[in-house]
Amino acid sequence: MRDLMQIAADANKAKRTVAKLGTNDKNRGLLAIADALEAHADEIIAANQTDIEAGRASGLSEGLIDRLMLDKPRIKGIAEGCRQVAALPDPIGETLWMRRTPSGLEIGQKRVPMGVIGIIYEARPNVTVDAAALCFKAGSACILRGGKEAFHSSLCLTGLMRAALAAEGLPENAINLVEDTTRESANRMMRLNGSLDVLIPRGGAGLIQSVVQNATVPVIETGTGNCHVYVDASADLEMAKSILVNAKCQRPSVCNAAESLLVHRDVAEAFLPMAAAGLAPSGVKIHGCPRTMEILGEAVLPATDEDYGREYLGFEISCKVVDSLDEAIDHINRFNTGHSECIVTRDYASSQRFLDEVDAAAVYANASTRFTDGFEFGFGAEIGISTQKLHARGPMGLTALTSTKFVVYGNGQVR
Amino acid sequence: MRDLMQIAADANKAKRTVAKLGTNDKNRGLLAIADALEAHADEIIAANQTDIEAGRASGLSEGLIDRLMLDKPRIKGIAEGCRQVAALPDPIGETLWMRRTPSGLEIGQKRVPMGVIGIIYEARPNVTVDAAALCFKAGSACILRGGKEAFHSSLCLTGLMRAALAAEGLPENAINLVEDTTRESANRMMRLNGSLDVLIPRGGAGLIQSVVQNATVPVIETGTGNCHVYVDASADLEMAKSILVNAKCQRPSVCNAAESLLVHRDVAEAFLPMAAAGLAPSGVKIHGCPRTMEILGEAVLPATDEDYGREYLGFEISCKVVDSLDEAIDHINRFNTGHSECIVTRDYASSQRFLDEVDAAAVYANASTRFTDGFEFGFGAEIGISTQKLHARGPMGLTALTSTKFVVYGNGQVR
Repeated sequence: MRDLMQIAADANKAKRTVAKLGTNDKNRGLLAIADALEAHADEIIAANQTDIEAGRASGLSEGLIDRLMLDKPRIKGIAEGCRQVAALPDPIGETLWMRRTPSGLEIGQKRVPMGVIGIIYEARPNVTVDAAALCFKAGSACILRGGKEAFHSSLCLTGLMRAALAAEGLPENAINLVEDTTRESANRMMRLNGSLDVLIPRGGAGLIQSVVQNATVPVIETGTGNCHVYVDASADLEMAKSILVNAKCQRPSVCNAAESLLVHRDVAEAFLPMAAAGLAPSGVKIHGCPRTMEILGEAVLPATDEDYGREYLGFEISCKVVDSLDEAIDHINRFNTGHSECIVTRDYASSQRFLDEVDAAAVYANASTRFTDGFEFGFGAEIGISTQKLHARGPMGLTALTSTKFVVYGNGQVR
Repeated sequence: MRDLMQIAADANKAKRTVAKLGTNDKNRGLLAIADALEAHADEIIAANQTDIEAGRASGLSEGLIDRLMLDKPRIKGIAEGCRQVAALPDPIGETLWMRRTPSGLEIGQKRVPMGVIGIIYEARPNVTVDAAALCFKAGSACILRGGKEAFHSSLCLTGLMRAALAAEGLPENAINLVEDTTRESANRMMRLNGSLDVLIPRGGAGLIQSVVQNATVPVIETGTGNCHVYVDASADLEMAKSILVNAKCQRPSVCNAAESLLVHRDVAEAFLPMAAAGLAPSGVKIHGCPRTMEILGEAVLPATDEDYGREYLGFEISCKVVDSLDEAIDHINRFNTGHSECIVTRDYASSQRFLDEVDAAAVYANASTRFTDGFEFGFGAEIGISTQKLHARGPMGLTALTSTKFVVYGNGQVR
């Protein structure tokens, strides 16, 4: 087992080789990884079984066991993901601009690899492969630190990926797993300044907060989404119902699902019963303001500020009747997590003000927040959804995993 | 005196107004600030005098006193800086791209203000105005926390700027000075998560390290520059001498000045005496490797690894004879701070490999590292030079102070 310092040293050595690989070589490595995962599916399933048995023994919920579980179709899906990353355009080497300065220098800005990328994640073994494939295509080495629940699966997957790269004459240390799954190893990783160019946490709010609070390396904060649907006075109420039900119920466990409904008072009496009827088949619990409770009656629980700030990630929603677009915008800017926000409206000025003034990674007029996703946005892949404003905001594709450098060609210029 | 929490609340309220200001309004504010600074030059000079007297009493070096000092020409220069920022193109509101997705959504990425920007800096009162002007033009509110040595100057300058904005009907809380100059206030500012979208330290290595180690808000690391000039076997030695002398001596106190010279062994005997002769008029002390000492004799001090890692910021330089381009690249990637690096060469392959493989914000072939600067690079202004790879790398102009958001226009789409 390599110690974290050894892994950091290995990754920093490998990054120079990975950075120089051409697109064809990187794609060859990714296709070899995909083939190896499929060829060794039985081995992966056996390792995964160890994790699942340990998980059951320690009382993991069936939902978590399901996230953890790998079978042949899922392994095939993971391998297909690698092939899709291979098919994506290579972000490295593009010169974004180049111009001649008054002193005759040719100055350009070029897209270059980040170097070494750290990913801290939880019990989803597929992240092990997804993240490694994206980092490799982006020309960087990666250090992966997954949750202990998926340890044997992740160890098997990284072993296969490293062997596949080595068999192709490519640097196996481009992909590294931290085998020490103690909290201490995560904390040490967060402070690998000089060895880690960026750290991306992928997981729940607790993990992300721990990284934000403890890391001294640059971090991209991802993920939690307290997303709102605001139904404006002029909304097409059928459209509003369809968007709300989709945003809340289609997949409630994900970060772009709606967690809160705001309704303009002028349409509250007409819309709230429609909303309740739309949410009822999924058994959605409504936490409402006093006016919501008045309209919908006893089925509604009283909403507190804590409810307005909550990411339920399940069949619950907070609901508030607002007096104006201004109140809706203020409420969202107070309680949201900077993820995805939607207005349903037929009014031109309301849509423009909402899109301008709501502070979030993605703002929608008349469409479900569920579209906030790297694939839906056309990036072909996604390493996560950034909810910070620095570097990358919203769904992050391959370019979010790159940096730039200024390249200057001179012929003896001095100042 | 407003407490930091009050300042954070005021800035977060003001940011929404600033974000909505049109370019003309922002420029009107900047021109009003410039006029106010010139009109109240005597007041500024009086406040500055208080700082200078306190500085002399506490034994500040004359170098620091000079950085601190404001007179009429300098105040005019600062005001001119504001007018130049007003003349720059407004970065806000540009849609970087917009396209229709298969589901018929129109998705675009738009440049938007960062929100609230924090700047922690030292005893240069001009930074107070430069930073405020750039943040304002970029549509953000700012929280400035300057060194205690410049406190009275900064207080006077921010008072004048805030009054100038208020007189124009613009939000004075767009510009805020933290009046508590204890270390405690700086540490609290570094942890204003939720109220500060980014924190930029501007100053020496100690300040920057303190921010990197302690901040939980997103940080852009700026500044320290251990910059190298590498003289390749094929270099035009006269050009190499001219670039070296310029990079080392023209302004040794700045981060883009050269701190280390690497010379290929094939030209060491010819070049080192030329280099020494070029550096001698400025009295540059050379810390050399054994081979350098052999060639240049007794005037050279022995160089340690500590020397190779040092940013002298004065008339000193480390010097090493290397066996190959590879050794030069390895040495630089080991000791540099990711700032600016130069190769002097006539060889095509050497230039390409150096530009590709050296990991730094700016890489030069045949030009002085002193060009790494927002003005020289054509950005019209500079808030600092980023030495990290996230968000912005190298000289940061107005766009480095902005973020983006995804704007989605739909007509009822659901997933």
